[in-house]
Amino acid sequence: MSSSESQEPPPSSESISKKAAKKEAAKQEKLRRRQEVATATSAASNLSVDDDPLAVNYGDVPLIELQSKTPVDVNDWTKVEALDDSLANRPVQIRGRAQTIRPVGKKMAFLVVRENGFTVQCLVQAQPDSVSSQMVKFAAALSRESVVDVEGIVSIPAAPIKGATQQVEIQVKKLYCVSRAVPTLPINLEDAARSEVEIEKAIQAGEQLVRVNQDTRLNFRVLDLRTPANQGIFRIQSQVGNAFRQFLLAESFVEIHTPKLIAGSSEGGAAVFRLDYKGHPACLAQSPQLHKQMSICGDFGRVFEIGPVFRAEDSFTHRHLCEFTGLDVEMEIKKHYFEVMDIVDKLFVAIFDSLNQNCKKDLEAVRNQYPFEPLKYLRNTLRLTYEEGIQMLKEVGVEIEPFGDLNTEAERKLGQLVLEKYGTEFYILHRYPLAVRPFYTMPCYDNPEYSNSFDVFIRGEEIISGAQRVHVPEFLEQRAEACDIEVKTISAYIDSFRYGAPPHGGFGVGLERVVMLFCGLNNIRKTSLYPRDPLRIAP
Amino acid sequence: MSSSESQEPPPSSESISKKAAKKEAAKQEKLRRRQEVATATSAASNLSVDDDPLAVNYGDVPLIELQSKTPVDVNDWTKVEALDDSLANRPVQIRGRAQTIRPVGKKMAFLVVRENGFTVQCLVQAQPDSVSSQMVKFAAALSRESVVDVEGIVSIPAAPIKGATQQVEIQVKKLYCVSRAVPTLPINLEDAARSEVEIEKAIQAGEQLVRVNQDTRLNFRVLDLRTPANQGIFRIQSQVGNAFRQFLLAESFVEIHTPKLIAGSSEGGAAVFRLDYKGHPACLAQSPQLHKQMSICGDFGRVFEIGPVFRAEDSFTHRHLCEFTGLDVEMEIKKHYFEVMDIVDKLFVAIFDSLNQNCKKDLEAVRNQYPFEPLKYLRNTLRLTYEEGIQMLKEVGVEIEPFGDLNTEAERKLGQLVLEKYGTEFYILHRYPLAVRPFYTMPCYDNPEYSNSFDVFIRGEEIISGAQRVHVPEFLEQRAEACDIEVKTISAYIDSFRYGAPPHGGFGVGLERVVMLFCGLNNIRKTSLYPRDPLRIAP
Repeated sequence: MSSSESQEPPPSSESISKKAAKKEAAKQEKLRRRQEVATATSAASNLSVDDDPLAVNYGDVPLIELQSKTPVDVNDWTKVEALDDSLANRPVQIRGRAQTIRPVGKKMAFLVVRENGFTVQCLVQAQPDSVSSQMVKFAAALSRESVVDVEGIVSIPAAPIKGATQQVEIQVKKLYCVSRAVPTLPINLEDAARSEVEIEKAIQAGEQLVRVNQDTRLNFRVLDLRTPANQGIFRIQSQVGNAFRQFLLAESFVEIHTPKLIAGSSEGGAAVFRLDYKGHPACLAQSPQLHKQMSICGDFGRVFEIGPVFRAEDSFTHRHLCEFTGLDVEMEIKKHYFEVMDIVDKLFVAIFDSLNQNCKKDLEAVRNQYPFEPLKYLRNTLRLTYEEGIQMLKEVGVEIEPFGDLNTEAERKLGQLVLEKYGTEFYILHRYPLAVRPFYTMPCYDNPEYSNSFDVFIRGEEIISGAQRVHVPEFLEQRAEACDIEVKTISAYIDSFRYGAPPHGGFGVGLERVVMLFCGLNNIRKTSLYPRDPLRIAP
Repeated sequence: MSSSESQEPPPSSESISKKAAKKEAAKQEKLRRRQEVATATSAASNLSVDDDPLAVNYGDVPLIELQSKTPVDVNDWTKVEALDDSLANRPVQIRGRAQTIRPVGKKMAFLVVRENGFTVQCLVQAQPDSVSSQMVKFAAALSRESVVDVEGIVSIPAAPIKGATQQVEIQVKKLYCVSRAVPTLPINLEDAARSEVEIEKAIQAGEQLVRVNQDTRLNFRVLDLRTPANQGIFRIQSQVGNAFRQFLLAESFVEIHTPKLIAGSSEGGAAVFRLDYKGHPACLAQSPQLHKQMSICGDFGRVFEIGPVFRAEDSFTHRHLCEFTGLDVEMEIKKHYFEVMDIVDKLFVAIFDSLNQNCKKDLEAVRNQYPFEPLKYLRNTLRLTYEEGIQMLKEVGVEIEPFGDLNTEAERKLGQLVLEKYGTEFYILHRYPLAVRPFYTMPCYDNPEYSNSFDVFIRGEEIISGAQRVHVPEFLEQRAEACDIEVKTISAYIDSFRYGAPPHGGFGVGLERVVMLFCGLNNIRKTSLYPRDPLRIAP
C-alpha cells in the first residue's frame, strides 16, 4: 500500500465506495457537532444560537475534529509571519493565540492573533452574510492565550497598525476556538514582553506597570517562552548550534555522542552529581573531556559533540548553571596549538556572521525588549598572550599575579581595554600560566610556567576554554602527580595514550553563554530553556 | 593585531627582526635535537648513527617540536584517503599509524600506514642519497599503531596492492615517529578488523584465526574504534544526525536542549536513575517527552532535540542500552496525527538517501567486516494499521491479542511478511491499541480502544515510537487516572496545558538503533561509541 492511499482516515480496510459514503456522513456529522458546540458555547454566554443562521462560522472546535483528518491540507494555514501586502484581498486561514481581545460596541471586536512571536490584527465585524453579532460576542468572550483558527480576507489598513508586528489586517469571516486557556493567567504576556525602558518611562510619567521578575518567569516558563524576545532567543540558540555544526562538518569533523554516566568521579575540579549505577558508584560527566580525547586516540581525527554538561557547583552567579549545553571540540594537531585557535577563530566568525545574516527578526525581537549593541568582532580574531593581557592591565594600574589567573573583574576590565585599543569585543587570550590550567594541559616548550592554552572572551566574559593536551602517557602521569592527582584513579584515561596517541587539542564552549553574550543579556537563565541552578530543578 | 601576524611563535611581543633571528636559531636547534633523538633511538637499536650522514631523515620527533609551530602549513599533510594516481610522482607527507611493518632483508621494509581506516603501502628502501640501511632498520623496529610522519614520492605499483585501501605506493624519503605505541597491544587491529566470513573460511581450511569478542573490543575501545568498520559506523552515525537536523531545520523546526536533571521521577514506565540534587530527590530524564511538549505549549511550533536518554532497565538484549542518543521531535498538528507520520516518512527517506549518497566508503567499510544487504525502502513509506498488521500475521497462523501488543518475535515475522508483500524493510504501523500506549496518547475518534499512535520498523525491529498527545488538561487527568497514575505527581505537566495548548504530536528515535538496523548489525553496542549497559559503565 502506498503512502498516499493510506492517508484516508482509519480504519482503512473498507472498500472505496463505503469510504466515500462514510466520509460524506462524517462531514454532516461534523457540521452538526460544530453547531452543537456553538450552541453550548453561546448558551454559556446567554446567547441563543437558534436565532443565528450563521452559527457555523464560529464556535469551539470539538476535540474529535482534532483527532480525525479533514480534507484540508496543512499548507492551507498561512504563517502569521508571512502575512504581508502581497496577500491583499486574498482569503487566508491562520492558527495562533488570541493575544488581546478588544470589543468596540456590540458589532465589532479587534483580536490580535500571535504565532511564534509574530502578531496580526483581526477585525471581527458584524456583517449580514457571514458575521453575526453573536459571533462578535463569541470573539469578545475568548480568553487570552486561547488557540484560535481564523479565516478571513487580508486587507491593507488605512493607518499603520500599532501593537502588531504585521502591517496587514484580517477581515474575519470564520473564527473557531481550538483550545481554551484558563480565564486568569498567572502572568500576562504583555507584562512579560515589556522592556525595562518602557517600565522606567512609565514610572517617570507617574504610572506603574507590572514588572515580571526572572523567578516568576521561570515558574511559568510555558507562558514566558511565548514572548517575542524568548521566541527570538531560542531560535538564535538553534542557529548557533546549526552554524557550529555546519562549519565543523565542512572541516571534516565527526559528530560524536559520549556517555554522561561515568564510573567513579569525573576528571577533577568542580563538584559532581553522584549516583548509583547498578550498585556501582557513578557520576554525571562534567565535560566530555576524557571521551573526546579517547575518540582522538580512536582515530576519528577531528570530533565534536553538543550535549549536556553537569556541574554540581554552588555558584549563584548570572553566568553559572548546574546543567548546560556544551559545544565541545577535539582535534589532532600537527605541530602547534595555534591550529586549534585557527578553528576557534574561523568557527566563531562564521557563527556570528550567520546570526547576523539569518536571525535578523529574532535579534530585533530580543533587542526590542532587551536593548543591546551588535557585537563588534574582527574578520581575523585578535590574539593576545596572557603576558600581553596583564601588561595592558598593568598600564592602567591593575596588578595581576604573573602566574595567577584573571578574576571576573579583571577579565571585564581587559575586555574594555581591548575594545578601546583594537575595536573588538571578541578575542583570544592564550599562553596562560600552567599553574591555573588542568593537569592535562601541554606546557609551553620555551617556558614551562606557561601553557599551550587559551580562553576566548565575548564582551569581557569568558565563553571558551581550550588547549593542547599532553599526549605522552609518562608525561601525563608526571603532570597528574605534580597536580596532586592520584595516577591510579585516572589510569584508564592515561592508558588510552599508550597505544600511540596523536598530538591533539580542543576546546569547550557553553551554548547558553554564547547566546547570552552575543545578545548582551544579563542572566544565563534567559538563554536556557528550562534552567537548572542550585535552587531550581523545575519546571 | 591581525590573526596572520599573531601566528608567530609566542612570545609575540618581540620585534620582527629578533623574531627572524630566533626562528633561524630555532631551526638549527630543531635539527640538532632531531639528530640527538635519532642517535638515542639508533643506539637503542644497537646502531651507530655516527656512521649515518642521512640520520636527519628519520627518528623520533621530540616532544618539543609538537609544542612549537614550525613554518609548515597543516595543509602540507595529504590525507591517506586522498592518495590516488592523480598524485603520481608527486612528493607527499602523510601522518598515520604504522599498521603493519614487514622487513624484506636489511635493505627494504614495507610499512602500511593507516589514517581514519584508509591504508597505503609505503616502501622504505635503502638508497645512497636519502635512505640509509639504519633508516630501514628504524622502520622495521617501529611498534605497530605508532603514529608516524612519512614523506615520500607517490608511485603507481606494477601489480595491484593487497592489504591496503589505496592503490598507490609511497617511496619513502623521510620517516619520523611522532608517538610510540607500547610494543605489545592488548588487541591486534588485524584481528579486530577481521570478518566472520574470513574466520569461518580459515576454520574450514584447518586454520585458526583470532576472533576478538564484543566485550574485549569494548574493554579496549580506543584500539577497537580504529578498525575500518568502526571508522565507518561512527561516520555514518554522524551523517544520520546531520541529515536528521538538516531535514527538520528546512521544515521550520527549532532545535532545543531540555534538562536531563528532573525533579522527582520521570513520566513513568521504565526504571530511572535516581540522584540527590542539592538535597532534593531527582532523576535522569528517560526522555525529553514532558519538556518537548512544554516547548510546544511555549509556542515553538515544531521542535527537535538530539541528546542522551537514560534507562535504568535491566535489559540484557542486543538492542537495549542504559544510555543512548535520542532523536526527538514534537510538532503542532492542525487536524490529524498523519501530519506527524508525514514528517517521519519524508525524514527517514531523506536520511536513508543521504547515507546511500554520502557514506559510500563508510558503508563499504562496514560491509567488508559485517556483510549486509542495502536497506529496501519505498519512496512513499508504507503505512499499515495495527489491525491490518495482525490480520497479516493471522493469515500465516500467528494469533495476536487484538488489543495487546506485538512481541519482538511477532514484529520480526511481520517485517518478513511486509517485505514479501510490499518489498520494503521500512514501514509504519499505526492506530495501536490504546491500552499498550502511554497515558498521554490521544485515543482514536471513532474507536477509543485504538489510539492515534504509531511505531516504525526497520528490518523487523522497532526504531521509532510516536503519537498525537492529549492536549486537553481535563482529558489528560482522566487518562492518567485510567492508567493508575496519581494526577498530583504530574500536575506541573498537566498545568502546562491550561494556558491554551495547541494540538500536537511527536516521536522519538534511537540513533544507535537507526545505524544498527540500517547496517544490519547484530548488536547495539557496535553503534554506541562507549556503550552503557547494566554490566558496563566503562571506559
